[in-house]
Amino acid sequence: MSVKVTKTEALDYHRVPNPGKVAISTTTELNTQRDLSLAYSPGVAYPCEEIKLNPELAYEYTSKRNLVAVISNGTAVLGLGDIGALASKPVMEGKAVLFKKFAAVDSFDIEIDATDVDKFCEAVKAISPTFGGINLEDIKAPECFEIEKRLIEELNIPVMHDDQHGTAIITTAALMNASEMMNKNVEEMKVVVVGAGASAIACSTMYKELGVKNLIMCDSKGVIHKERTDLNKYKKDFMVDEVMTMEDAFTDADMVLGLSRPGTFTKEHIALMSEEPIIFTLANPTPELFPEEVKEVRPKAIVGTGRSDFPNQVNNVLGFPFIFRGALDVQTRKINMTMKMAAAKAIADLAKEPLADELKKEFGDLTFGREYIIPVPFDKRLFIEVSSAVANAAVETGVARVKEFDLESYKDKLSKMI
Amino acid sequence: MSVKVTKTEALDYHRVPNPGKVAISTTTELNTQRDLSLAYSPGVAYPCEEIKLNPELAYEYTSKRNLVAVISNGTAVLGLGDIGALASKPVMEGKAVLFKKFAAVDSFDIEIDATDVDKFCEAVKAISPTFGGINLEDIKAPECFEIEKRLIEELNIPVMHDDQHGTAIITTAALMNASEMMNKNVEEMKVVVVGAGASAIACSTMYKELGVKNLIMCDSKGVIHKERTDLNKYKKDFMVDEVMTMEDAFTDADMVLGLSRPGTFTKEHIALMSEEPIIFTLANPTPELFPEEVKEVRPKAIVGTGRSDFPNQVNNVLGFPFIFRGALDVQTRKINMTMKMAAAKAIADLAKEPLADELKKEFGDLTFGREYIIPVPFDKRLFIEVSSAVANAAVETGVARVKEFDLESYKDKLSKMI
Repeated sequence: MSVKVTKTEALDYHRVPNPGKVAISTTTELNTQRDLSLAYSPGVAYPCEEIKLNPELAYEYTSKRNLVAVISNGTAVLGLGDIGALASKPVMEGKAVLFKKFAAVDSFDIEIDATDVDKFCEAVKAISPTFGGINLEDIKAPECFEIEKRLIEELNIPVMHDDQHGTAIITTAALMNASEMMNKNVEEMKVVVVGAGASAIACSTMYKELGVKNLIMCDSKGVIHKERTDLNKYKKDFMVDEVMTMEDAFTDADMVLGLSRPGTFTKEHIALMSEEPIIFTLANPTPELFPEEVKEVRPKAIVGTGRSDFPNQVNNVLGFPFIFRGALDVQTRKINMTMKMAAAKAIADLAKEPLADELKKEFGDLTFGREYIIPVPFDKRLFIEVSSAVANAAVETGVARVKEFDLESYKDKLSKMI
Repeated sequence: MSVKVTKTEALDYHRVPNPGKVAISTTTELNTQRDLSLAYSPGVAYPCEEIKLNPELAYEYTSKRNLVAVISNGTAVLGLGDIGALASKPVMEGKAVLFKKFAAVDSFDIEIDATDVDKFCEAVKAISPTFGGINLEDIKAPECFEIEKRLIEELNIPVMHDDQHGTAIITTAALMNASEMMNKNVEEMKVVVVGAGASAIACSTMYKELGVKNLIMCDSKGVIHKERTDLNKYKKDFMVDEVMTMEDAFTDADMVLGLSRPGTFTKEHIALMSEEPIIFTLANPTPELFPEEVKEVRPKAIVGTGRSDFPNQVNNVLGFPFIFRGALDVQTRKINMTMKMAAAKAIADLAKEPLADELKKEFGDLTFGREYIIPVPFDKRLFIEVSSAVANAAVETGVARVKEFDLESYKDKLSKMI
């Protein structure tokens, strides 16, 4: 399942048949003067007046109901860094395409020319009536933390920074299954996180929520411990008491989660770990260490990467389309930890099911095991299982606006949409 | 061609099959891991890098090329007033639908929760990298003037407040043809403008550009003359030296343009005018005076309204879709007066052509005359004639980025899109 693409192929894909990957379509007829009178003046005044009287009716009469903004300022684009708002547009359009293709969520990209937290938040808040949810994307740390926190507090629609929570959800799903496979209890595992950026911090937070107690985070200067004096407040939350080296951290560790750069740890580090470790090397497109290098020193390891040309691809597309599908369908105000954990569990559970027949042609007969701990992106059951798990968790934790919800009817409705 | 619609019909139209009138569609294939690698990571990095090196390439690789934002804060929605950002969403979605249906322009509505000029402009500027053009809509005066001025100055994409310039262009087209029909020279006409809001000021500005010298503007307090002490700077530009009453203004006037409210002038005012006057009563949905009332006192008058159930509908949809079509296609930085005048001329000229066969069923055999001085919205030739006139004017006045432009090839291209 190699997916190498050339520059020419990629540029052509973005240029043909028309520039860009998203377009606007209309959902109603507009062929006669009568249609015009319904869609625009004078008929349009009726839904306007209804919404003015009851703002919730925007969910009945406008596209807000199914609309998620993909918003970025282009300051931390995967593999490219700070390329600015305009140059990030192809990525954000790509994300919008994934929302639509994987979960029938209408998604529109907005590139914001503002790196300052206040300015960025002001712009997003100002345009927020337009949307039913906001997916923040590729915003650099630490600004992304403050931006997300503030928008979650101040808006009454769900806001999620996918680089943080999407990654956290998928790696938590992977951890759930890998630990089960290896017969490890997460509460007893020694976990090393290499990287201390937005995604590393979100993953670590979720791992602790799952029960991980012994978690050691490393940044470019080494282990984050109590004698370090160069730590921001987000890193400080993961400070360990013991002063130690990276080698100390890796010794007898059960798992390493790499969210850093190629080469930040090596085969020699892996050789210090337990005999059957869990190794996620998620730097992209070049992982910290390639699976074959890991296998040289730990042949029984479970290895995951961010790439589609190796087994166990940790890909955010397993999560965000369905998380927002569920969130939109019950009109949540927030995406809380219970919802995120429910998403992770649903993803993990699906890997234990037999592979769908239509996927066998591309992927072979994958069965739950060390080479298959998380589903592949094109598994259509994700749409039903993850979306419904998220919606159900929202209803159960009281953050959904929708009053009437029946899990089985909802799953049934989703299954008919495939 | 009556188009009365009931509340139930209008609400159903906005709710069925799905809430809202616009959706996002994807323009490329996304069915395999390979497609995913082209649309998203890793292939998407190539267009990002190209745009980073040369920002103009955003027009080659993203939807910016064909994308216009319809932006409002809902402070002056036609017939509804200040209903706020959220409640204005059905109108803005409707406008987006018109862009798409009439001119294949992808258009996305953005509702901005800000009434303050600074805040509004900051938000629009922040999100502007996303779009290839900005159509401002339903923003109250006088804020709309300052907002439009500032955005035109500070952005390098075309910005147009349609309530001002769209209306000005269509009424100028109507004036061109009505004056020709009545054998009146605009330079010698006495024109009364009733209303002094955003559209009235834009229309009056364009009329003066066309050659009108004797123009008298009235607001709710009467004629705007030099002894008035309650005028904002925009109204002051249209102050007349002579102190006079509304009755003085109407006496022997050749034309009245009503952009006000029902009843601001009456049959008695019309009875003061010249024998064959031009009367545009554009208050909507209820005009200042109905055509039959005008005809009682001036049976030979040319009458236009904003409604589709009377002859001579002055409807902005004759303009904005094609103005932006032309502007986008030659990548203009501005929409200048030459372009607006070219649009008006193209609209006016089209009314002199025989009605297209496919329109005869709905409209009868309309021919250029007092009951048919402007084309009907569904005349498909508007797409070719207005768009190409605007594009050509942009190129000729040096505001287009596109270097190579051939009018006939462009018209040919447009004709193939119908």
